[in-house]
Amino acid sequence: MSKKNQTQVMIGGKILVVGGYESEEYIQRVSYYLNSKISEIQKSDGFRRQSDDRKNIMIQLNIADDYFKAKKQVEILEDHIAARDKEIFDLKHNLIDMQRRLDDLKKK
Amino acid sequence: MSKKNQTQVMIGGKILVVGGYESEEYIQRVSYYLNSKISEIQKSDGFRRQSDDRKNIMIQLNIADDYFKAKKQVEILEDHIAARDKEIFDLKHNLIDMQRRLDDLKKK
Repeated sequence: MSKKNQTQVMIGGKILVVGGYESEEYIQRVSYYLNSKISEIQKSDGFRRQSDDRKNIMIQLNIADDYFKAKKQVEILEDHIAARDKEIFDLKHNLIDMQRRLDDLKKK
Repeated sequence: MSKKNQTQVMIGGKILVVGGYESEEYIQRVSYYLNSKISEIQKSDGFRRQSDDRKNIMIQLNIADDYFKAKKQVEILEDHIAARDKEIFDLKHNLIDMQRRLDDLKKK
């Protein structure tokens, strides 16, 4: 089992120490994404007028939206893989069939 | 352009109205995910002892972690697709080659 790491990050202007088995590099990448996301949302006119509770929920919804979009992409790619697997199966079938015809012709 | 929707949701025990172009069904699915995520994090011993600010950041980090894992999966699937595309290309090449050999044999 890998060692537990302690990584200090700054998210939304607040410094905190994150403990876990993920690498420091990974935690920093996730924190960088979160800060970009928070800055992006803070630019919207409506955001600043909201209560802190609502601001937090809006940030959560925005991150979750990115997650759902990535999950949707996973589904689409899985469909593409299934279609290619079918194509590979058919091509291999054709190859075997053609090899058989070649062998027959050679025998004659 | 699709109509802007207003969807009432409850996230982390707070009711709010979310405006946007996403369908109500989508907003409800994202909210359901967020509530499951928040409940899951709240079960951890360390969470309840934290300040509200830290709780919020921990929730954000957790959602972002799901997003990064889904993005990683997208990268892996894209690699799988590239490998299959290469295999399809090679199989088609073999088929053309075999067809040519078949035609040659038939001519003789």
